[in-house]
Amino acid sequence: METIFSRFHLIIVQDPDLKGELKIPEGFNLNLYTKSDIDKVVGSSSNAISFSGYSCRYFGYLMSRKKYIISIDDDCIPAKNSNGEPIDAISQHIINLTTPATPFFFNTLYDPFCEGADFVRGYPFSLRSGVECGLSCGLWLNLADYDAPTESLKPDLKNSRYVDAVLTVPARTMLPVSGINISFNNELVGPALLPAFRLAKEGKVRWETVEDIWTGMCVKVVCDHLRLGVESGLPYVWRQERGNAVESLKKEWEGVKLMEDVVPFFQSVRLSESAVTAEDCVVEIASSVKEHLGPLNPTFAHSAETMVEWIKLWKRVRAN
Amino acid sequence: METIFSRFHLIIVQDPDLKGELKIPEGFNLNLYTKSDIDKVVGSSSNAISFSGYSCRYFGYLMSRKKYIISIDDDCIPAKNSNGEPIDAISQHIINLTTPATPFFFNTLYDPFCEGADFVRGYPFSLRSGVECGLSCGLWLNLADYDAPTESLKPDLKNSRYVDAVLTVPARTMLPVSGINISFNNELVGPALLPAFRLAKEGKVRWETVEDIWTGMCVKVVCDHLRLGVESGLPYVWRQERGNAVESLKKEWEGVKLMEDVVPFFQSVRLSESAVTAEDCVVEIASSVKEHLGPLNPTFAHSAETMVEWIKLWKRVRAN
Repeated sequence: METIFSRFHLIIVQDPDLKGELKIPEGFNLNLYTKSDIDKVVGSSSNAISFSGYSCRYFGYLMSRKKYIISIDDDCIPAKNSNGEPIDAISQHIINLTTPATPFFFNTLYDPFCEGADFVRGYPFSLRSGVECGLSCGLWLNLADYDAPTESLKPDLKNSRYVDAVLTVPARTMLPVSGINISFNNELVGPALLPAFRLAKEGKVRWETVEDIWTGMCVKVVCDHLRLGVESGLPYVWRQERGNAVESLKKEWEGVKLMEDVVPFFQSVRLSESAVTAEDCVVEIASSVKEHLGPLNPTFAHSAETMVEWIKLWKRVRAN
Repeated sequence: METIFSRFHLIIVQDPDLKGELKIPEGFNLNLYTKSDIDKVVGSSSNAISFSGYSCRYFGYLMSRKKYIISIDDDCIPAKNSNGEPIDAISQHIINLTTPATPFFFNTLYDPFCEGADFVRGYPFSLRSGVECGLSCGLWLNLADYDAPTESLKPDLKNSRYVDAVLTVPARTMLPVSGINISFNNELVGPALLPAFRLAKEGKVRWETVEDIWTGMCVKVVCDHLRLGVESGLPYVWRQERGNAVESLKKEWEGVKLMEDVVPFFQSVRLSESAVTAEDCVVEIASSVKEHLGPLNPTFAHSAETMVEWIKLWKRVRAN
């Protein structure tokens, strides 16, 4: 564990609902944030933003000044590739973020920038330089990231398929980003990684939230508008079992139902030419959420408000 | 070889430029078509359509009455998967064509209908039934399908990466379909698999043609309009070396240059609601090619004319 973490700057955010003191080994380069830090930074400026539960990670995103941020859930350990060798997920994420993405035309041989690959016959030369990558979404072996209904129906369904590929998700195609194993370029898209979509009965296991799904679609819309890429595939992490899907079913249906409105919204939202930064884009998306989704469900109106507050907070923290 | 081919109906089309008689072993269920058959069917009805060289395969597509057509080039042999087991490319193509495609939202775990997989958390339930698959594009190991410039610059670049996945190419995303290893549902998209884009100096090795790239984008536009899927990935075939890329460079640049106009055209072309069959769609695309690409280069005007003639021929052959 030390060999993995000691190379990097670590940010540890204690879930503000979690009592007690964290025991952290010596010798790491880290910042620890607790409820009192959150209160100090956010203060009375926002009632809408919540950093509890899964959302505590977003406080870390807010405070980091690093260019590349990598976030992997605590139920994950390093996986092995198909040759049985341990996967360095951090290195693969950095490769994904630092090599170009190709969102405007599909390359059938997957990532043309990976070793041993290239663009196939017919790929326009004018598109071969690619664009910068904003977000890299890794995958998971063993426990796959299913929702509670799927998990309940197929409790024995494990993901054992190692797909040796990274691909750019094409422009204007939405995907369900899972926050379990991601990295992003903080300078390009940082403000879009936000805690804004909170279910009334938000839970403490992964299938009781869809906040990361919402956030992922925000980032994708921002990347499409700013001509940046979103990559999906390698690296894999190994996920351990936890939680009880059947007990979660009641909570989860709310998220599942809301997706039926959320996805068409993000598929059709278009931003104006005056939106030239991720901050601008998020504010425009929030305004469109308020107008088009707000009347359907109070959760949406609350999300729109939270997104606007988040951008204010983001700017204020950086102005200090 | 017998075990592979004896289960199926074979169509053999002799390149009309190829002299001599084919030697075909006994015992197969096949139709053989030669120059005299082509002349009889096409007669004087079309001067535009050419079935010579790589295009002879389209005569087979025209004559087949089977629902599923599989077409693999003669420089391919069965490949092995990452466990060293031989791949049954035919079975995999049939699986691809008979399981639903999911073009309207990206599933990060690739094909949700393959064994051991499903839709991930956040995937809208209303999109989980998928749509019918029109076209399945397989891949190639060893010799990859690069163009002549890439092949010349990197003569030692071989494809050795076995990516164990099938994925639906999202709606409105164009891809460079290679005709080397494909299958399609003839009833749904057959009329769109057409020989229409012929370079002035069309050659006899793969990198001297982009006809299949053009055809693939036609099929993709048709599938997007008719709400059908295009899948890419498995099965792999093993391709043998042939041709001399450096000698082909002069010819190839024509195709490479034309792609710069072809790709934006297919990305933006939209069909009317009255186009409800693949035939209708091809006629509308032809009309748009004539209008928007025709003035740029005589090759495009000729393609538009050929597409219209092809649809007439297709209907006439089926009316008999």
